[in-house]
Amino acid sequence: MNLKNAFLGLDNYYSPRIIGEVNDQYIKVVKIKGQEVPWHNHESEDELFYIVEGSLLIEIENQENIVIQKGDFYVLKKGINHRVSSKEECLIMLIESKTTEHTGKVKSHITKSIDEQKY
Amino acid sequence: MNLKNAFLGLDNYYSPRIIGEVNDQYIKVVKIKGQEVPWHNHESEDELFYIVEGSLLIEIENQENIVIQKGDFYVLKKGINHRVSSKEECLIMLIESKTTEHTGKVKSHITKSIDEQKY
Repeated sequence: MNLKNAFLGLDNYYSPRIIGEVNDQYIKVVKIKGQEVPWHNHESEDELFYIVEGSLLIEIENQENIVIQKGDFYVLKKGINHRVSSKEECLIMLIESKTTEHTGKVKSHITKSIDEQKY
Repeated sequence: MNLKNAFLGLDNYYSPRIIGEVNDQYIKVVKIKGQEVPWHNHESEDELFYIVEGSLLIEIENQENIVIQKGDFYVLKKGINHRVSSKEECLIMLIESKTTEHTGKVKSHITKSIDEQKY
């Protein structure tokens, strides 16, 4: 499967889509634009971000902000409070445990269940 | 970390390098050129291939060959005999379990231990 083409199936921002799995991890694509992801963490799970287009601001509690660009990846370690945003459209591939809730224990208007990420 | 830049640290073909980890998986980069990977399988582990440059021939026992190109990814499911090769240089990112032996139970002149993949 072509990674860029996987984004063609996305209708909405902030709606992760599961496009595959490797061992106990899901491979997901998501597009975002703006600042709608709430501060959250994943208590026991790391999360890999790989930027396919655009750039992503990762704000991390008690650390300096990080900006990653097209072609960069970043692994956010478990248990760290964070939120992500982007002024322009940003296309992201995620690798995360099958158990990971995409906004952690925080529920917001963008929160989707794992079943809602299978489309 | 920029994914393409991660390949600058590679000296040799067929020598995977661990560049990160996400949960119980390693993120590795490897470059190959030619046909030196022996037929092998990973009994209990899937393996994700993502092509950063070039194209990769994946031969799979009892299935049609697959060719994946720059920007494509493919998950080879556990237990399936396979080998990979490329006529021209091919840069690959791998996601695989920390326990995965890169040539399975087959030992060949290219086989590297996990410790040898940490450079």
